[in-house]
Amino acid sequence: MTIYIENLKFQTIIGILDFEREKEQELIVNLRIEYNYQDKFINYAEVSELIKIYIKKSKFLLIEDALLSLSTLLKKEFPLIDTLSLKITKPSIMPDCIVSVSEIYKF
Amino acid sequence: MTIYIENLKFQTIIGILDFEREKEQELIVNLRIEYNYQDKFINYAEVSELIKIYIKKSKFLLIEDALLSLSTLLKKEFPLIDTLSLKITKPSIMPDCIVSVSEIYKF
Amino acid sequence: MTIYIENLKFQTIIGILDFEREKEQELIVNLRIEYNYQDKFINYAEVSELIKIYIKKSKFLLIEDALLSLSTLLKKEFPLIDTLSLKITKPSIMPDCIVSVSEIYKF
Amino acid sequence: MTIYIENLKFQTIIGILDFEREKEQELIVNLRIEYNYQDKFINYAEVSELIKIYIKKSKFLLIEDALLSLSTLLKKEFPLIDTLSLKITKPSIMPDCIVSVSEIYKF
Repeated sequence: MTIYIENLKFQTIIGILDFEREKEQELIVNLRIEYNYQDKFINYAEVSELIKIYIKKSKFLLIEDALLSLSTLLKKEFPLIDTLSLKITKPSIMPDCIVSVSEIYKF
Repeated sequence: MTIYIENLKFQTIIGILDFEREKEQELIVNLRIEYNYQDKFINYAEVSELIKIYIKKSKFLLIEDALLSLSTLLKKEFPLIDTLSLKITKPSIMPDCIVSVSEIYKF
Repeated sequence: MTIYIENLKFQTIIGILDFEREKEQELIVNLRIEYNYQDKFINYAEVSELIKIYIKKSKFLLIEDALLSLSTLLKKEFPLIDTLSLKITKPSIMPDCIVSVSEIYKF
Repeated sequence: MTIYIENLKFQTIIGILDFEREKEQELIVNLRIEYNYQDKFINYAEVSELIKIYIKKSKFLLIEDALLSLSTLLKKEFPLIDTLSLKITKPSIMPDCIVSVSEIYKF
């Protein structure tokens, strides 16, 4: 089974520029979780809540670092995860395009 | 050939929370059917109608279980299906994201 | 190189139902053409024009047959094509979903 | 890690038709950069700025040639790039569809 959490939007401090450290910006997280569903299932509400709280608390400098930390945390909290695809988007940081960084983690 | 039935929307009882058992919510089904078209074709109208009736009647607790049951039913009713990709989305269950579960069945 | 012609929309007779033989409906064609670009290129304007004229003239019964015929024609007229991915969508035929059929042709 | 720069829009001279040489049209660039993130990261702001300046200055005849030149330039300026997927779209050149050309460069 593959769980999709798409277009998870919230405000957070993230980035290396001065104004990014001072003011929250919108962030969008998309993820896919592959796992072997048998008698236990992964609760999508818990996953999305944890992502939001953790990123807001961590105030990452680089999206790259957010991906690395988040993947470790999610695997620890939801050990059923076999493969995790994470994409983090800053929809408003550039005036004429949308920038994201993604990574796939196979555990 | 691959048949796509995209964005099939209807109201149904689905989910494990109390309010989900009492009140219908919107569900979206996306599917891809791979089959070997020769003289017989698969009727997309029959497929989409069957999905809607079956999910509404079954009132599943978990999307995961809906996927499993639905895949078995579709293969039984449409034996021409070689591969079935099913994705079921609850567009309104979470306030800040869209959640789905999908699976690919190779027969 | 891969050429994309996306969301090519026009009105045509297509389908097996009585009202589909009498009245044009909207059709959407999406295609990807892979070819080896060296000194000659494939003209996307000619490709899209040919598709539109051919499908309107042919008044196919099944999308499946339209895909087969169209792939043969496109390869004949544009022999540079190595791989052709074709998807034909009837956006309005079903009230609660979007139906399409696609195929990939490797020449 | 994979960086996405999506929907990068700007006006430029591009194309082989007379009116395309005289008047700017909208162009949309989408790209994916795969690279091995360790201590150094690729700055998405620098990448998108370079693309825009280079394509506007070059006034390419064919999208195919723009892809080839741009891939060489990006690898030279950002040697960390392992794989580059580039798609260039002319959203307004055809009245009833969207045309693009893409290529994937593995360095």
